[in-house]
Amino acid sequence: MSVVTLEKCRENIRKQLDNVVDFWLKYSLDRVHGGFFTCIGKDGKIYDELKYVWLQGRQVWMYCRLYRTMDRFHKPEILEAATVGGAFLRKFARVSSSSGQWKCAFCLTRDGKALKVQRTIFSECFYIMAMDELSRLTGDKDMQLEAEQMMEQLIYWVQVDPSGLGRPQLPGEVPINSLSVPMMLMCLVQQLTEGRGQEVAQKYKELGNWCVEQILKHIQRAGTAILENVSVDGSELPGCQGRLQNPGHALEAGWFLMLYGAQSGDKEIHRTAIRNFVELPYQYGWDKEHGGLFYFLDVDGHCPTQLEWSMKLWWPHCEALIAFLMAYSHTRKPELLEIFSEVYQYTFSHFPDAENGEWFGYLTQEGKVALDFKGGPFKGFFHVPRCLYMCERILDDLLENKD
Amino acid sequence: MSVVTLEKCRENIRKQLDNVVDFWLKYSLDRVHGGFFTCIGKDGKIYDELKYVWLQGRQVWMYCRLYRTMDRFHKPEILEAATVGGAFLRKFARVSSSSGQWKCAFCLTRDGKALKVQRTIFSECFYIMAMDELSRLTGDKDMQLEAEQMMEQLIYWVQVDPSGLGRPQLPGEVPINSLSVPMMLMCLVQQLTEGRGQEVAQKYKELGNWCVEQILKHIQRAGTAILENVSVDGSELPGCQGRLQNPGHALEAGWFLMLYGAQSGDKEIHRTAIRNFVELPYQYGWDKEHGGLFYFLDVDGHCPTQLEWSMKLWWPHCEALIAFLMAYSHTRKPELLEIFSEVYQYTFSHFPDAENGEWFGYLTQEGKVALDFKGGPFKGFFHVPRCLYMCERILDDLLENKD
Repeated sequence: MSVVTLEKCRENIRKQLDNVVDFWLKYSLDRVHGGFFTCIGKDGKIYDELKYVWLQGRQVWMYCRLYRTMDRFHKPEILEAATVGGAFLRKFARVSSSSGQWKCAFCLTRDGKALKVQRTIFSECFYIMAMDELSRLTGDKDMQLEAEQMMEQLIYWVQVDPSGLGRPQLPGEVPINSLSVPMMLMCLVQQLTEGRGQEVAQKYKELGNWCVEQILKHIQRAGTAILENVSVDGSELPGCQGRLQNPGHALEAGWFLMLYGAQSGDKEIHRTAIRNFVELPYQYGWDKEHGGLFYFLDVDGHCPTQLEWSMKLWWPHCEALIAFLMAYSHTRKPELLEIFSEVYQYTFSHFPDAENGEWFGYLTQEGKVALDFKGGPFKGFFHVPRCLYMCERILDDLLENKD
Repeated sequence: MSVVTLEKCRENIRKQLDNVVDFWLKYSLDRVHGGFFTCIGKDGKIYDELKYVWLQGRQVWMYCRLYRTMDRFHKPEILEAATVGGAFLRKFARVSSSSGQWKCAFCLTRDGKALKVQRTIFSECFYIMAMDELSRLTGDKDMQLEAEQMMEQLIYWVQVDPSGLGRPQLPGEVPINSLSVPMMLMCLVQQLTEGRGQEVAQKYKELGNWCVEQILKHIQRAGTAILENVSVDGSELPGCQGRLQNPGHALEAGWFLMLYGAQSGDKEIHRTAIRNFVELPYQYGWDKEHGGLFYFLDVDGHCPTQLEWSMKLWWPHCEALIAFLMAYSHTRKPELLEIFSEVYQYTFSHFPDAENGEWFGYLTQEGKVALDFKGGPFKGFFHVPRCLYMCERILDDLLENKD
């Protein structure tokens, strides 16, 4: 890709980001009960009023981030949406239960009644992301403190005792290290420490290092595979669970690790991030026949048991775009830009909906739209705008510093 | 279909049943720890050793039923497999927990340690089916009693208080009537009462009637739709959950209801079964473009949020074959045989694996094999052999009584 092509690419990405932000501002905000509708059909129609806490938190975070860091999104309607979403989350997301006061629901009714609670940490993760980022806009110290307190609870659940999550320990279970957990905690460390000064950085330094250590345990088979689930001591687990690969997660962990390597000056981590978590998942995750990234694979070539394993989902492609563009901008190796370009071609020729705006999320292996909604229980205002936002900023840097 | 064609059809079905029984006898039994492997690849290789309780119970039931009611399967190796499976189930499936002694695990390690417990009734349902059927072979009265005691527990959970299942009641939840619950209970009533005489029949009569009543509440929209989830008083629920249609479940409920109508002499129920639970789900569930039954649909035509909604799964086709052949045999209406024939053509040209035996389970919308294993966490020795067994018996009757 020449500079001219990168400029065209940035222009497209800017337009896409504007389009996606407009789509959600237009359809998603619930002015009656607060929070966001996220089950949004292809033409913007709300087809379900449930409010999924992951998506509420992510949407608040994304609006705040755009408002705070990009001039053209520093607009009252974005601040309003973030504030209304944040208030809803703060008022309704936390459920009181015998297992402690910090557990968040997974799903709420339109008016904020808890409907489902997951026995995992992810609702809480996105709650923390939202509260921390919103507190940066409003200067609300209580909100920032709340984010940090919930973070302490998460650390306790992950590192000391998970019983507060509500899942009974069963005799056949062995504790596992699932990539998503250290990955999300690392993302939170980066969120909570960003620009907060030395004291906060110091507070989370040990946790950050622990996350890196846990993530690196997923490099298996003499460096030829990233496995989604490993044992706590970093060895392979038996069966499907142990052989599972999720290229999108590996790529997402890849750019989190790259940021960590760049910020800490750890060149070895940075190299490992690119080699093992960016280049490698692309090598085994890319469909040579139809293009696009598989959702799940089995490292030994068995058929995964997940029914959707061969589908092409929007978010692994978003993560791949960020990962390859960041890797290129950090190294200027042309082969990384080549792969970015391939992922870019596939992504922009398959996912965006030219007719009604926003992106489709779920394609068949062959690239046909299989589910045509723009938002659903797991697709909200997050992966697409975060990808476009990150890529635009990386391209700004690249084009400013062009030779 | 003429009598000659029905005879060819029976011949094929007999061969298929022999093939499927051979496949599972050859690969599935675990002679070391007892129970069955069910994660079996396309060529018979075990790719995961976990033991799913639904599938353990179903496989015991199926072997017993074949041994007990079909001469050519009255063989020592089938009795042995049933006994070994039953012993494993009885020894390991039940977990002791604070919520009561009758809860069964969902998934066990190879050597029988509980790994996962679902907060639903289905592991227990298949445990009961297995124990009741096995007790008919062995004459073990304790086993029969155990099945009936667990049944009492199920009835209590479903009709009185579900809290023993372990799911906390949340403020946003409304109790729902999910088709699978009364359908499974009805199946159990038919299982427990079959040939047991008047006293047992009387014991479960009220429950059987209650199941029918609950199933009929799923007829919605002036008789034009079967909805998978309705409110307890039988009205529509809001959102995706309320609009969900599962043609395979409706068809399965259809032949359970038909049996109930035939046995009780209730002609109105029998007519409703065929019209609303057999013909109707085929009308809205059949893919006019590519053939085959969709897995999920939304009654208002929105895109379902289940990623696999448009896939063609083996089991709805099994249920459709039983339902249409039974409906034809009870009514002799040629249009029902026509549809049976259409489902038969699709099923036998897409699912069986001529090379390695057994059936594939999961096709894309277009009919391509998407997951190539023969057994997995939800596909065991059950829907395929039950379908072939039921169809062979119905065809035997039809061909014996041919005009």
